[in-house]
Amino acid sequence: MIRTGVVHAELARHLAGLRHTEHFVVCDSGLPFADVPCVDLGYRYGAASFADVVSTVIPAVVIEASWISEQMPQLNPDNLAVLYDVGLTPESIDHDEFKARALTAKFAVRTGEATFYANVICRAGVPFDSP
Amino acid sequence: MIRTGVVHAELARHLAGLRHTEHFVVCDSGLPFADVPCVDLGYRYGAASFADVVSTVIPAVVIEASWISEQMPQLNPDNLAVLYDVGLTPESIDHDEFKARALTAKFAVRTGEATFYANVICRAGVPFDSP
Amino acid sequence: MIRTGVVHAELARHLAGLRHTEHFVVCDSGLPFADVPCVDLGYRYGAASFADVVSTVIPAVVIEASWISEQMPQLNPDNLAVLYDVGLTPESIDHDEFKARALTAKFAVRTGEATFYANVICRAGVPFDSP
Amino acid sequence: MIRTGVVHAELARHLAGLRHTEHFVVCDSGLPFADVPCVDLGYRYGAASFADVVSTVIPAVVIEASWISEQMPQLNPDNLAVLYDVGLTPESIDHDEFKARALTAKFAVRTGEATFYANVICRAGVPFDSP
Amino acid sequence: MIRTGVVHAELARHLAGLRHTEHFVVCDSGLPFADVPCVDLGYRYGAASFADVVSTVIPAVVIEASWISEQMPQLNPDNLAVLYDVGLTPESIDHDEFKARALTAKFAVRTGEATFYANVICRAGVPFDSP
Amino acid sequence: MIRTGVVHAELARHLAGLRHTEHFVVCDSGLPFADVPCVDLGYRYGAASFADVVSTVIPAVVIEASWISEQMPQLNPDNLAVLYDVGLTPESIDHDEFKARALTAKFAVRTGEATFYANVICRAGVPFDSP
Amino acid sequence: MIRTGVVHAELARHLAGLRHTEHFVVCDSGLPFADVPCVDLGYRYGAASFADVVSTVIPAVVIEASWISEQMPQLNPDNLAVLYDVGLTPESIDHDEFKARALTAKFAVRTGEATFYANVICRAGVPFDSP
Amino acid sequence: MIRTGVVHAELARHLAGLRHTEHFVVCDSGLPFADVPCVDLGYRYGAASFADVVSTVIPAVVIEASWISEQMPQLNPDNLAVLYDVGLTPESIDHDEFKARALTAKFAVRTGEATFYANVICRAGVPFDSP
Amino acid sequence: MIRTGVVHAELARHLAGLRHTEHFVVCDSGLPFADVPCVDLGYRYGAASFADVVSTVIPAVVIEASWISEQMPQLNPDNLAVLYDVGLTPESIDHDEFKARALTAKFAVRTGEATFYANVICRAGVPFDSP
Amino acid sequence: MIRTGVVHAELARHLAGLRHTEHFVVCDSGLPFADVPCVDLGYRYGAASFADVVSTVIPAVVIEASWISEQMPQLNPDNLAVLYDVGLTPESIDHDEFKARALTAKFAVRTGEATFYANVICRAGVPFDSP
Repeated sequence: MIRTGVVHAELARHLAGLRHTEHFVVCDSGLPFADVPCVDLGYRYGAASFADVVSTVIPAVVIEASWISEQMPQLNPDNLAVLYDVGLTPESIDHDEFKARALTAKFAVRTGEATFYANVICRAGVPFDSP
Repeated sequence: MIRTGVVHAELARHLAGLRHTEHFVVCDSGLPFADVPCVDLGYRYGAASFADVVSTVIPAVVIEASWISEQMPQLNPDNLAVLYDVGLTPESIDHDEFKARALTAKFAVRTGEATFYANVICRAGVPFDSP
Repeated sequence: MIRTGVVHAELARHLAGLRHTEHFVVCDSGLPFADVPCVDLGYRYGAASFADVVSTVIPAVVIEASWISEQMPQLNPDNLAVLYDVGLTPESIDHDEFKARALTAKFAVRTGEATFYANVICRAGVPFDSP
Repeated sequence: MIRTGVVHAELARHLAGLRHTEHFVVCDSGLPFADVPCVDLGYRYGAASFADVVSTVIPAVVIEASWISEQMPQLNPDNLAVLYDVGLTPESIDHDEFKARALTAKFAVRTGEATFYANVICRAGVPFDSP
Repeated sequence: MIRTGVVHAELARHLAGLRHTEHFVVCDSGLPFADVPCVDLGYRYGAASFADVVSTVIPAVVIEASWISEQMPQLNPDNLAVLYDVGLTPESIDHDEFKARALTAKFAVRTGEATFYANVICRAGVPFDSP
Repeated sequence: MIRTGVVHAELARHLAGLRHTEHFVVCDSGLPFADVPCVDLGYRYGAASFADVVSTVIPAVVIEASWISEQMPQLNPDNLAVLYDVGLTPESIDHDEFKARALTAKFAVRTGEATFYANVICRAGVPFDSP
Repeated sequence: MIRTGVVHAELARHLAGLRHTEHFVVCDSGLPFADVPCVDLGYRYGAASFADVVSTVIPAVVIEASWISEQMPQLNPDNLAVLYDVGLTPESIDHDEFKARALTAKFAVRTGEATFYANVICRAGVPFDSP
Repeated sequence: MIRTGVVHAELARHLAGLRHTEHFVVCDSGLPFADVPCVDLGYRYGAASFADVVSTVIPAVVIEASWISEQMPQLNPDNLAVLYDVGLTPESIDHDEFKARALTAKFAVRTGEATFYANVICRAGVPFDSP
Repeated sequence: MIRTGVVHAELARHLAGLRHTEHFVVCDSGLPFADVPCVDLGYRYGAASFADVVSTVIPAVVIEASWISEQMPQLNPDNLAVLYDVGLTPESIDHDEFKARALTAKFAVRTGEATFYANVICRAGVPFDSP
Repeated sequence: MIRTGVVHAELARHLAGLRHTEHFVVCDSGLPFADVPCVDLGYRYGAASFADVVSTVIPAVVIEASWISEQMPQLNPDNLAVLYDVGLTPESIDHDEFKARALTAKFAVRTGEATFYANVICRAGVPFDSP
């Protein structure tokens, strides 16, 4: 079995398949995103938590930009702190713009999080430097 | 959105589709069960935990019998206690027999549990009484 | 087997998979809605009835808005009463607008109801409060 | 729309496709039958009822033989009476034999019936006579 | 086996699945209609005949409107008579408009008919009255 | 469009794909043959007729052997005469053996024939001679 | 096995399924036509030849119009002669228009032909006359 | 486009995917081989010829063993000569054994060859030497 | 097994299926190209290398035009040299135009290359001359 | 994009999905293993090399047992050394037994290795200890 990191087969496939500038979403239990392929980790309201999934997934990939809804800083500061903890510095955007952008994601990871605006969109960066 | 209970679409489908005497498995991250359809909730070693998934899933269904590996009482008493807490009284069987029986399950729920022998096989009962 | 509630596997899957603001339809035997995924419960004209299906499905989910055709209050007051009984306060809209909106639903539940305008579109709400 | 009879598309397909000596099952919510294709009409415990589904389906087809579990006459006489009402004269067989025979069916119609042994296996006959 | 009526499984499925205002086509061997799902009953030029298929299919359903190409009355009066015999009163429209409308059908029934303009588009009506 | 012969796309595919010694079946509306791929031409009891389908299909292919049920000569002499008319000289075999052999067919053509034992199994021959 | 004509199962299916005014293409090894369903008969440069495939396929169907690229008469007169031999009188059109029209074909037959502009688009006609 | 060799996409896929000791078949138009994946190059009796297909395919691969039916040397010496010309030295085996062995092939290439026993089974060898 | 050249089954299929003017891409590990079918050869950063894959694939096909991003000459001269070595003379275009054009490719070959702008788009030419 | 390790999406999926005691294979270009799901990394003879793929894949997983063919130590000592370098201590078994065991693998990774007996079967171990 795999030594460490993401042990979920479909999620591991999505992460290894990310290419430069592609987007993905980690979201709460309620964010609508239509036909975006979804790895569903939420099994009850509250679990899997947004904080724990973010803390597992984000360190495995290089992120060059990220976005949150503008309500998140006020309504969900604890989960925003988690994003900072894993090294993200997300840009706040209008919630409708956030939902429209979420539709362009290559995949989404749905948690069971049952708090407001616990969602982040990430854009993949490259793990090697220019010469 | 659904009010309470299991919020995972595929898991909800499996639970609602259970018929009398059919088996399902809740297991740790390592139990092999070949082609049994699998709802994979484990995303890192340790989460989703066996205890939390069992506590979510089992109360939703009627179980008329259940089985664990005979090593579980000694090597994983904490997770066994969880099974008792949700009302199961599992029978201990040989681990090879356990793995063979797991292959007959209609579906499995894989957690990220990273302790030994954290697995249970359940047989569905009926929620109505004989007259 | 599942203890109570919706015992239909595909319907349970659709309900557990609902996200905030997504729409679904419960309808009579004749409402056209093209390629919207459909759980078909109607097996003869009159059964499954709109009233009984509504009474089973709606209590399981949080609905934040709903719509009916403007003819329903006059032509089908009994079934409208059922909607009120389960806590809905649907808005009346033009029937053509109703049919167009039905095409945006994530899924539909078709009954065998054989009375006029026995249809409702529901928008999923969230089961947890803002802090 | 179709004038009368079975208004469920998949069920109509199964019935029109029946050939001489093929079996099908109408059953309660709990009968296990593995991979037999299933038209699922049950949406809550109690509905669709076995009696109403039997009364809709059986008159549409010619049945040359039928079977019930040997417990049905004593434990579910009301539903047995329904079978007689639609013209069946089912043979009582051992419940294990019944379940094994159910596995050979071409399709099954699952109701939401929540009483004991409300199941019947039917063998299709021919609607034209020898010359 | 089914007692009477349409004995073709796929055709029975399409008919039972018709909803109010949906269209279907019964046509000769040559009408082009691209990706419309097709039940193909024609096996040689001349059989199955348009007349016999129409006489089998139309009585099973409620039709609230129908259309033919404007050339049919002059070039194929015999098959037009068949349409009147089964109770249709089709409206004549331009052949190009006819072909465009055929593309919106939910399904088509292709016969082996080898005469000109033996085609009809039907719109499904409802089999129950307003109160 | 094709000039003459079999105008049914799937049936034409099956006939052109036949190889030496492979079997196919032309049958009445009731012959059971499980999962053998089926071209279904029957749309009502009586049509398409066994005689007309046989007269269309058989002349298109080389048949080196054929079988009927031993009851056919007595109970369905008219349709047997059709087989002779198209050049077949079928061997009579036990009906159960006939049904078992039908299961080995590469494909079947189901008619709407509503008379008894109107079935034939054909084995494909080669259309070129030994040198 | 089939007596004569087209012995390729998929090609026979396409030809028997042609309807009035539908297009198909017979082409050399290089013509691009994106997602048009393709029967690929070319296995090396030069075989199957355009001439032999045309001579096999075209006589089986009624063609009411056909098109070639305007370069064909000068650059590939031998293969043009083959088209005349099988009774076609193709219209010459601009090569870009030819390629655009090829995209509307119902199917294509790709040969291994390795000469320039060996391509023809055919429109299916009807094999029966107006009365 | 590819410079030379096999220009058929599916055939190229099969050849490049061959592994040591796997079998494939090149056959005439009539050899039966059930569900073995088939690249069908035959479009009329006589074309594609066995000789030309063998001469195209065999030089592209390493063959370590091959088999023909024992009737081939006497009844089809010309096509046997083709096999020798491309470097094969096939072993003659009983025709029934040949047909049974053909069922184990990974893929088959069907030609339009219309002579007797024009079939060969090849076993893939390795293109590099032991040290 | 195949004697030489491309031994990857899916890649061989794509190459043999190329038609005149169709595009394909060989790219580094990060180029985004959405739903273009992808043969993924990269298994770690650095392998398979762009240089080795280009040197294997390009000689197998005729290329009539090719494109690189305008940054490649300055930022990745070594890999550009590889393109010249296999006979390509790529045109430099704006990187955004490059990425847009990549979306029209018929397939892509993804390497594990971990240097900047190691991507080339190729347009297939024909391997035979005008007369 | 993923920071390090296996960048191949399908291979990452297979590795993350491994469960205790399941087998997988890393093999040369010629090992036959029928229908075992295969990640094909070989694109020419010699690349991807067995050594480099082994050195990438094996460190990512816990292996509790491994097997090679008994000829490998003598005929391919360099690649055997690679296995030791990544910490494996494979057991030598008869080559036919090796090939039979390979058929039970959950997946295989095919390289382009063109030397003899460069194959290893691995059995997944667990990354956490007994208490």
